[in-house]
Amino acid sequence: MMRCTLQYEPIDVDALLAQCTNPSDGAVVCFIGRPRNIDNGREVLYLEYEAHQSMAMKELNTIMRKASEQFTINDCIVVHRLGRVDIGQASVVIIVTAMHRKGAFNASQFIIDELKKSVPIWKKEYFNDGSQWKSG
Amino acid sequence: MMRCTLQYEPIDVDALLAQCTNPSDGAVVCFIGRPRNIDNGREVLYLEYEAHQSMAMKELNTIMRKASEQFTINDCIVVHRLGRVDIGQASVVIIVTAMHRKGAFNASQFIIDELKKSVPIWKKEYFNDGSQWKSG
Repeated sequence: MMRCTLQYEPIDVDALLAQCTNPSDGAVVCFIGRPRNIDNGREVLYLEYEAHQSMAMKELNTIMRKASEQFTINDCIVVHRLGRVDIGQASVVIIVTAMHRKGAFNASQFIIDELKKSVPIWKKEYFNDGSQWKSG
Repeated sequence: MMRCTLQYEPIDVDALLAQCTNPSDGAVVCFIGRPRNIDNGREVLYLEYEAHQSMAMKELNTIMRKASEQFTINDCIVVHRLGRVDIGQASVVIIVTAMHRKGAFNASQFIIDELKKSVPIWKKEYFNDGSQWKSG
């Protein structure tokens, strides 16, 4: 199963994990990216994400396909939030399952690295006294 | 927060993730190890884990301490099941949080590699027609 989603709603990690039921997969690696409350010493109150949605979905699918070609994995789920994301919430969740752990770890790192590099999703940091756009 | 547990009860991954609330941690890596239903072509029905509990706890604490010295991480949770573990259930869960993802990924892989090497936990595979003990 290979699936990516962009959504405004909070991400239900447990529900995503429950979808990975392949009985021959001995390893599940779940990466959760969260907004940090500090950026360069300034307190961040919350973030807002915007995407070029059709391009982002296309790019995410390409990254997942590449991951499944380069690494021995089975299930692959990528979910990214849009809109306001509060401190403590997940902004991105990547779940990869595999028969053995090495492939799952490598694919997970590959996907988040590529996502940050090439997927058109931008974030705006909100401070007490203003806001600023940043890449991915 | 650094914590390891050996338990007979199923592992509640969501409850463990909910304990990792450090607002400056941008990355959470959760590794879940599960019994596979096939070993060398034989169907595995379920596993049973046994540990030298005091030695296993001591060794797990050592591994987590080493991980926190070698990598820039914050929270670190390791939970390993004992007793019967069915296919589809988690036999081990490792959660590492960090400000940045690299440390979290590296520490997570380090902990599961070291756990498999040195922690006195053994598993017994149950087949249709018998059973056999294996290391970790």
